[in-house]
Amino acid sequence: MAHIDLGVDEELVPGINGPMAFRPETAKPLNELAEVLLRGPHPLTPGERELIAAYVSGLNECQFCHNSHAAFAAAQLDGGMAVVDQVRADLDSAPVSAKLRALLRIAAAVRDGGRSVTAEMVAAARDEGATDLEIHDTVLIAAAFCMYNRYVDGLATFAPADPGRYAEAARRIVERGYGG
Amino acid sequence: MAHIDLGVDEELVPGINGPMAFRPETAKPLNELAEVLLRGPHPLTPGERELIAAYVSGLNECQFCHNSHAAFAAAQLDGGMAVVDQVRADLDSAPVSAKLRALLRIAAAVRDGGRSVTAEMVAAARDEGATDLEIHDTVLIAAAFCMYNRYVDGLATFAPADPGRYAEAARRIVERGYGG
Repeated sequence: MAHIDLGVDEELVPGINGPMAFRPETAKPLNELAEVLLRGPHPLTPGERELIAAYVSGLNECQFCHNSHAAFAAAQLDGGMAVVDQVRADLDSAPVSAKLRALLRIAAAVRDGGRSVTAEMVAAARDEGATDLEIHDTVLIAAAFCMYNRYVDGLATFAPADPGRYAEAARRIVERGYGG
Repeated sequence: MAHIDLGVDEELVPGINGPMAFRPETAKPLNELAEVLLRGPHPLTPGERELIAAYVSGLNECQFCHNSHAAFAAAQLDGGMAVVDQVRADLDSAPVSAKLRALLRIAAAVRDGGRSVTAEMVAAARDEGATDLEIHDTVLIAAAFCMYNRYVDGLATFAPADPGRYAEAARRIVERGYGG
């Protein structure tokens, strides 16, 4: 049970959805930020950006956010859930582009703390073709999931165990987007 | 120098202002979130909410965000900067209400990680009169500053040393708000 009364049936409205129903004034910018970062026009595909979100959420051990964004990445990424799982298990050997691998290393550093991002990591991403926009958005996606993960777990929200629930949410996100 | 070319004079446009100028699409929801959380209608005063932001930013050792929100808190809080400094030095003995002290303990736990927030911490805040809304917003303010701090430091933005720059920013925030 969540730490506060979210005013919803937590089994039916799990994870971040409960606090968003409780406080629509903050849900609005939280959804807008996710929509721009993960689904707006961008050189990285939505699947690649969802993979960054899933990877950071996995490192933060946020079950609801990890399962959600893993499903959203898998639904939009060549290779599906196998790629998401391989990135989580061993980034070095996972079947992603050299550019995305370098960006995921920056994301992991941001998760540790902003000052863990080194000029060398940024140069390595640039060497693989990453642009300033891609580096900027990788840093902000990783930072944003350090917020979403803490929001979801800091209020002790409910995370369904059934993978079908996350796959269902993925269909909704792909079709209607965040806040849709 | 920041990790990416922000397209601004970093001395004149320091900290989060550079990345916000670089990427206005994400600046919009980031400013809206700060405005609702720190300045919207609320049982906690703007000064109390800025104090939570400053406290978390200090724990994350984000110089720009700490100095900024310390100045914004000091400008709107009875007791001014002395209270901000005492909270940072020793929360247990700082001259804040028992309710705010209990909320600041929750904020520190969120900063460590969402699952560090315990039912006992929440019950202690409730015993001092904290409402579900105050607990929710404390968790989200703390989580949001885990994002803003990582965004600012993950891109290696410039933080002025001169306290006058932060006091000047405080006058602007108090008068016009975030994104104003």
